[in-house]
Amino acid sequence: MKQFLSAADVTDIPALIRSAQDYKAEPYRHASLGKGARIGCLFLNPSLRTRLSTQVAAQQLGMEAIMFNVGAEGWALEFTDGAIMNGTTVEHVKDAAPILGMYFDILAIRTFPSLKDREEDYSERYITQFVKYAGIPVVSLESATLHPLQSLADLVTITEHFREPRRPKVVLTWAPHVKALPQCVSNSFAQWVNAWGAADFVITHPEGYELKEEFTKGATITHDQDAALRDADFIYVKNWSSYEQYGQLLSTDESWMLTLEKLKATNDALVMHCLPVRRNVELSDEVLDSPHSIVTQQAGNRVWAAQAVLSEILQNRKK
Amino acid sequence: MKQFLSAADVTDIPALIRSAQDYKAEPYRHASLGKGARIGCLFLNPSLRTRLSTQVAAQQLGMEAIMFNVGAEGWALEFTDGAIMNGTTVEHVKDAAPILGMYFDILAIRTFPSLKDREEDYSERYITQFVKYAGIPVVSLESATLHPLQSLADLVTITEHFREPRRPKVVLTWAPHVKALPQCVSNSFAQWVNAWGAADFVITHPEGYELKEEFTKGATITHDQDAALRDADFIYVKNWSSYEQYGQLLSTDESWMLTLEKLKATNDALVMHCLPVRRNVELSDEVLDSPHSIVTQQAGNRVWAAQAVLSEILQNRKK
Amino acid sequence: MKQFLSAADVTDIPALIRSAQDYKAEPYRHASLGKGARIGCLFLNPSLRTRLSTQVAAQQLGMEAIMFNVGAEGWALEFTDGAIMNGTTVEHVKDAAPILGMYFDILAIRTFPSLKDREEDYSERYITQFVKYAGIPVVSLESATLHPLQSLADLVTITEHFREPRRPKVVLTWAPHVKALPQCVSNSFAQWVNAWGAADFVITHPEGYELKEEFTKGATITHDQDAALRDADFIYVKNWSSYEQYGQLLSTDESWMLTLEKLKATNDALVMHCLPVRRNVELSDEVLDSPHSIVTQQAGNRVWAAQAVLSEILQNRKK
Repeated sequence: MKQFLSAADVTDIPALIRSAQDYKAEPYRHASLGKGARIGCLFLNPSLRTRLSTQVAAQQLGMEAIMFNVGAEGWALEFTDGAIMNGTTVEHVKDAAPILGMYFDILAIRTFPSLKDREEDYSERYITQFVKYAGIPVVSLESATLHPLQSLADLVTITEHFREPRRPKVVLTWAPHVKALPQCVSNSFAQWVNAWGAADFVITHPEGYELKEEFTKGATITHDQDAALRDADFIYVKNWSSYEQYGQLLSTDESWMLTLEKLKATNDALVMHCLPVRRNVELSDEVLDSPHSIVTQQAGNRVWAAQAVLSEILQNRKK
Repeated sequence: MKQFLSAADVTDIPALIRSAQDYKAEPYRHASLGKGARIGCLFLNPSLRTRLSTQVAAQQLGMEAIMFNVGAEGWALEFTDGAIMNGTTVEHVKDAAPILGMYFDILAIRTFPSLKDREEDYSERYITQFVKYAGIPVVSLESATLHPLQSLADLVTITEHFREPRRPKVVLTWAPHVKALPQCVSNSFAQWVNAWGAADFVITHPEGYELKEEFTKGATITHDQDAALRDADFIYVKNWSSYEQYGQLLSTDESWMLTLEKLKATNDALVMHCLPVRRNVELSDEVLDSPHSIVTQQAGNRVWAAQAVLSEILQNRKK
Repeated sequence: MKQFLSAADVTDIPALIRSAQDYKAEPYRHASLGKGARIGCLFLNPSLRTRLSTQVAAQQLGMEAIMFNVGAEGWALEFTDGAIMNGTTVEHVKDAAPILGMYFDILAIRTFPSLKDREEDYSERYITQFVKYAGIPVVSLESATLHPLQSLADLVTITEHFREPRRPKVVLTWAPHVKALPQCVSNSFAQWVNAWGAADFVITHPEGYELKEEFTKGATITHDQDAALRDADFIYVKNWSSYEQYGQLLSTDESWMLTLEKLKATNDALVMHCLPVRRNVELSDEVLDSPHSIVTQQAGNRVWAAQAVLSEILQNRKK
């Protein structure tokens, strides 16, 4: 693996899941793999789990992790080619990225979408330019349209919670929220479940919330949440803003919030969420505080997902 | 020790003081005790000495310390049970804390009081919920009402500066300030000196600045600063806002500022302050720059206090 | 070396350049020199290269680096002697610095000039007070008037790119900018090139942009950029605000921007800049993206410069 921006960078998803599980069983099994190596983690946006789990994963591989808050500790970067930089941006990614490539062995980046310009967001202009100019492996800590470390942790979580000799039914359901959120987690989860191919996958959301087909292709898509939830083994709850009417909050229909009542029609489904979750808006206390919820275990798995990815990049680098 | 939120968590204060002194004599005596362990330090509020001394202490024990500025690097947390989170808080402590409990071996938290709602502040709702939901030992880096790492360093400082075969007279005196400050340091110092029981302890302040009796019980309390200072061996200078008229700045009476003149009536007293100190407001240059001041040594002892506490928690964890 | 605030702290510049080159050839050649030592890096202002390269350098010497954002993670410091601190500053450097001196083995500080009060800026009041009160070696991460780690990296870059048996012609040229910048990088480069004495050194800028003579003395100074550039081997491009009309942006004359056309009269000159650079304002894309530009290698050399400096301080400390 030379970079980790999406499921497309992974040749063998089940093997990567197993690697994560192996690290979970034995965190320090490769405690010196990363000796003398450094990962630079650049945050253009806030992060809790991703930031901390990446630091933990790096440390368990014996690698140095250096955190940098781009806006607060540095300054605004320019991403437009040929820009006459007489405004508020202070440094071009063309100049910053190659230097980061000299300071670090792996570069990890968190950057959110604007939710204003769909074409720009979906071009993944920011992270793509870091890849282009850094000259070292780049790991996404969530980009404008995807969140692959989250999705890998999601598949690890499903794998470890499902022991039956059949395919699980996995449902991704839209949930209400008070503000417009990126489509990243949902796009990415859809992309990974489809690439994995080991689940019956249903996506449900109100009209107007269709995700980009590139990611959902292969899944059953329905606006009927009740039908979608029937016999579900796993329900991934997530809000996202509209892709069609880009970045808009079309509906905040509270009836889409998952309840214990709705879980009755499922196969005693386990409930997932990437967190942070707005309690009693996206997901009710009664579900989150019930044994159905595996959101904590899911977030815990972020460490092992990150460790599996960093490990594979480090091993590839040594070849 | 399973947590470190107040003097009540310590069974043997003199032993903990000795442990701190042992680390001061030999910082790396247990350089691999914390190997493979991680402390996550969450800052909901600013910190200099506490932050840095905790990092230093962790490192000297071979432990990884990961710093996280909750507001700036993450987002606002919700602490109200059952909240409908449609406002500005993004994540509930119920969801964040258990995950931190999976990423770290020890969780350390800094959180200031609002100074607006006494009942809420004195319930220690924030740190208490981290304790409840994190499932790992929690260390206070100063909470709404107490600052135990400071107080332990204070007792280490008194111990190492007093060699006479009698009890020292220790005076905690209120000092003027330009803004309303928490009662934490004063509450905590009172609690620790009383629990320690090895000093004659006097608290002096203007009327209306009575601290909560729970912490001061056992001390002599007087509004007569001159009487209080007489024959003092140690004078702890600190401002705090009113507990009764909660969070109010009732008086900024400059005559309460300690001067060299006032020190004449003391037993050549040593002057302490937790820092940061507003020079020439809380304490005059003439005192701070005189040999009476031991504020630097006191702040230096923060490292050894933190190291003693982390060490005891690590040792308890290994059992 | 007991501190590193300017070229004046270095007794043998060529030896320090060689040390940096040795670390570049073998980064981990002294991987345990800094074992058990800690550098505290205080940022009163933003930083990217300096911050990251210092962390990398420290790690490669086996030293712990602790970063602290003074304003964001702490509070405003007071630098005026005798101040009555009833305003917005919370802690005096007199109180903070000695404690940092107890927590760390080396203290590194980044602090920008106000550009409002020349006398104050050029007194280097901030970093000087840290030196005075910290009691440990202080390293400048850029101060009000100088940026020595940058300059050392600059000399390393010139040395490694020039192999002819003659003195290189090095030109420092002013460049346009949209905002008023400090004189630090230019002062410092001038000071170092002059102290090094191994180049023919020309400084060119519009009228009114004369740098302080203390730093430039020994260089040829001209307002004729074309004449200056003739036969140049290295061109250091940098904007600075006026020293005479202190902190003013007198001219933003675009004709001073370096172009490929202007490079024709040079000895196929290599172009340097400390970065961040405002593209197409200070320097055109055509130059930055051409083989003339060595700005990336130059910034890469920041690591080895920092490592050479920290190494010398550590070695001195062990004596």
